[in-house]
Formats: sequence, structure tokens, C-alpha cells
Amino acid sequence: MTVLGLGPMGRALAGAFLDAGLRVTVWNRTPGRDAELVARGAASAATPEEAVAASGLSVLCVVNYDAGDAIVRREAVTAALKGRTLANLTADTPGRARDAAAWAAEHGIGYLDGAIMTPTTTIGTPAGVFLHSGPEELYREHQAVLEALGGTHTHLGADIGRAASYDVALLDVFWTAMAGYAHALAVARAEGVTAQELAPFAQGIAAILPPIFEESAREVDEGTYSGEGNPITSAASSMAHIVHASEEHGIDASVMRAAEGLARRAIGLGHGGDGFLRITELLNPR
Amino acid sequence: MTVLGLGPMGRALAGAFLDAGLRVTVWNRTPGRDAELVARGAASAATPEEAVAASGLSVLCVVNYDAGDAIVRREAVTAALKGRTLANLTADTPGRARDAAAWAAEHGIGYLDGAIMTPTTTIGTPAGVFLHSGPEELYREHQAVLEALGGTHTHLGADIGRAASYDVALLDVFWTAMAGYAHALAVARAEGVTAQELAPFAQGIAAILPPIFEESAREVDEGTYSGEGNPITSAASSMAHIVHASEEHGIDASVMRAAEGLARRAIGLGHGGDGFLRITELLNPR
Repeated sequence: MTVLGLGPMGRALAGAFLDAGLRVTVWNRTPGRDAELVARGAASAATPEEAVAASGLSVLCVVNYDAGDAIVRREAVTAALKGRTLANLTADTPGRARDAAAWAAEHGIGYLDGAIMTPTTTIGTPAGVFLHSGPEELYREHQAVLEALGGTHTHLGADIGRAASYDVALLDVFWTAMAGYAHALAVARAEGVTAQELAPFAQGIAAILPPIFEESAREVDEGTYSGEGNPITSAASSMAHIVHASEEHGIDASVMRAAEGLARRAIGLGHGGDGFLRITELLNPR
Repeated sequence: MTVLGLGPMGRALAGAFLDAGLRVTVWNRTPGRDAELVARGAASAATPEEAVAASGLSVLCVVNYDAGDAIVRREAVTAALKGRTLANLTADTPGRARDAAAWAAEHGIGYLDGAIMTPTTTIGTPAGVFLHSGPEELYREHQAVLEALGGTHTHLGADIGRAASYDVALLDVFWTAMAGYAHALAVARAEGVTAQELAPFAQGIAAILPPIFEESAREVDEGTYSGEGNPITSAASSMAHIVHASEEHGIDASVMRAAEGLARRAIGLGHGGDGFLRITELLNPR
């Protein structure tokens, strides 16, 4: 099989395929990134068309679809992919995944879209988490090779945008939480509290999120938002304390101000007794 | 001991004190909230001055310091508190805690400030988490009574603002993460993915936060922000996907736009190779 793109993630993928005993061909736009992989037995292709012609399955992993399109949507590469399969593990939006699938169908290319939810260090280990979407039969055909990457692989269905939908939503949770942690550390430092002093308690806060995520999911699907014990008015009050404590130190509170604004709008619309997740209805009315 | 404020949290506190076998006097601005507590043995005070006069230690737990001040900063109550101790478990900013301590010192009132980090359902159980700050000796004097609330109690030091600092920072992590989850669910729904479908994976994302919080804390304290394997440029790219996927559906992405803006500013200042937490330096320059 072939790996296109040898950034840190692409190299980890190619290394895991090699470790699984597969014949691997690699290519990268900037030359020289494949030295270690070639030493481990990979074949180095001079061009992407040569790389994709070497295998029935090519895995593409670059920074985003603009970079991916610049590789595969050139006539020679598109022609070489005809009758073969491209598994795109590049992260971007669901819309871009659907657009790529339409392009692939037009050119007789089998197309799978996927998302890698865990860092490079998890590739080839049981900790890796991979999401896939695209035609069931095509996925089954290449499943064994993809599973050589280790970890858990979930086929989310034939809708090609599904892996990207999950990817975007899950990274939304991750990066918003990280923005909150960064801001919390900045406010704490202004108050003379170090990151290492706060971290054990912050870990405690993170640990209460999984059960809250699980318990609230049904309410969100049903459009009921019980605020019992913790109404959105309390959330808005907490958020105001955070904004004040931050801005008293001249610290930008734009992330929390935006979140508080959503809570205030939900309260303004008469939902003050509901739980905080009521804001999902503001964001995306049914 | 005395409990002022009988909202859901105040009632939980008074109930736990009663369960621990303590003599408890209660008062609430709106009458009638104490019926169940009185049935369980609490004494009901007609006024806050009567309530605080009944005990050496009064615990105050209301919605914020404005509400708390409206109770205790009236002449009769302030006079009755003289020579006694007020433990304020109301949430607000560190600045408000310091202001309350100054008022208490001026009036000969012992003052402790505290924060309750867990929901009402945890009060009286091992799952409760309480943070305290204020004079060491005064805390030790009342520690046994406060620990009757169950859970873990940490005295963070004599700096009276410290419990509120931790409280604000930890709620910052919590509410920002919840805003991210709400937004993720809204985007997922627009893509035909239900909350219950996404939740198991979102729990997986939350589960990777504690080790990241722990591992990054030293870097943040030292001002080194290794972006190895995950530079802030990658974070900004992910954030842009989230914003695009959201706005393609007309979904407000103001929280993520604010977070992405911080990442872009750090990159613009030449820190693109650093990790995402580099934004703490933008938020609060040393």
C-alpha cells in the first residue's frame, strides 16, 4: 500500500504499516522525509502518480484538503488512481469530504474518508482511535490493511461526510476545553496560583465531564434540558465571575464572553430554568 | 452552627451538618425554605442577626457576594457577628473575597472564604470537594465542623482570595468545556449525528484531558511551550475547520472564533512552532 504525505502523522502511519509487514510505498512533496522509512523497507516514489500506481490502496494524510487536492487532483495522479482506492485520513470539514467523494466518483476512484482522533504516538498501539466513512463494501475490502494501524477502527456508515463530522465535533470539544484551560492558567497566575498548583484540581474538573456528556446526551436529542440543581442562570452567574476576575487583571476574556453571551440569550428567551445545554437550540434551532 | 441561605446548596449544607449530629440554626431571606430542615431538627431563626447570634460559626451560601453582602453587611447582623466567625462558601471573584475580608477585619469578625467545587448531590458524601482560604489558625478552629460536610477539604493558605481564585479558574475550565460540548452537539446535529451517537467519542476526548493538563503544567510555569508533534499552527488549522463546518450551517461559532483568534495572534507573534498553551503568555504576559 501507499502513503502520501510524510509529516509526523504520515510517517507514523507508514511506520505502523511497515511494522505490520505490509509492502509500503511512500511519497512526500518535500523530498528527504522518507529516509528512515526507506531504511525500514519502504519503497520511495519519485512522484505521487508513481506512488499511487504502486498499490491498490493509497492513504493520504496531509495538513488539510487544500494540500491533499494539490496532490491528487492533478491529471496524472487522478488517472493513476482510476480503479484504485484512496483513503483520505486528512482532517477538514464534512463538506470537503463530500466534495472529494464527488470528484473521486467522477474519475472512477474508490474513495474512503477517515479521521485520526489520537496523537501520532498512539499510531500502531492499542490507544489509536480511527473513524471511517464511505461505502461499506469498499471499507470491508481495505479494513484489514487499515487495521494494521492498530487501535480501534469504527466505520460510521456510508455517508462520506460522517467521519469528518465526528472529527470536527470532537476537536471542537477538545480545543474549546484547551482554550478554557489556557485562560484558567492565565487568570490563576495573575492571582499568584501556579499551573502546577491548579493542575490537580483541573484534572478533577476534567474527570467529571465524561459522565455529564453521557447523561446529558439523551436530553439534548429529545430537546428537554432539565436545569434541576444547575440552571443556566447559575451557569451565567459563574461565567460573569470568570469574566470579571479575568478583566480585573486586564486578561482577554473573549472566549468566555462569547459563551456567556449564548447563556444570556437563552435566559432572555425565557429558558433560565433550563440547563446550560439549552444553548444547543439557539446555535442550531430545530 | 448556622447556615445563611437555603437555596439548593444551602439546604444540602444544612442537611449534612444535621446528619453529622451538629446543632444547626438556619435562615433564608424568603421564608418557608426551612420546613424540611426544621423537621430534621434545625432551629429556624426569624432574622439573620438572630441566626448568627446562635452560633460561633456561620456558613453563608448564596448566589453571589451582592446577595451575601445584602444579608451580612446590615448593622444588626454585622454587630451580631462581632467576635464570631463567618465562613463564606458563596462563589464570586477573588477581589470580592478580599473586600469581604477587609470588611470583616474592620468589624472584628473572623472571616474564612471557601468554594464548593462539586454539585449539591455530593454534599455529605466522599465525592464533595471544598477549597478554603484564610487565616490558618481560624481554619483549624473550625475545620472539624466544616469537615462534617464530607468529602475532601483543602486549606489553600492564608491569602483570603485563594479559594475564589481556584474556583474561578476551575469553573473557567468547566464552563468553557461545556460550551465546546454544546457547540459540538449543535454542529453534529446539523450533520445528522445525534448527541447519543457522539457522546461515547466525546467521553473519550474528555478522558485525554487530565494527562494533558498534568503534563503541560510545568511547561506553562516555566514559560516553555513545546509544540513537538502538535504545534499551535495545527491547532489553528483544526479550529478553522470547526469554524467553517459550523458557519456552513449558519451556526454561531463565536466561542471558537475567539479561541482561534488567540492562536492566530500567537502565530503572528512568531510562536507558530510552540504548543497551543503558548496563548497563556498572550493572555497574561509576564
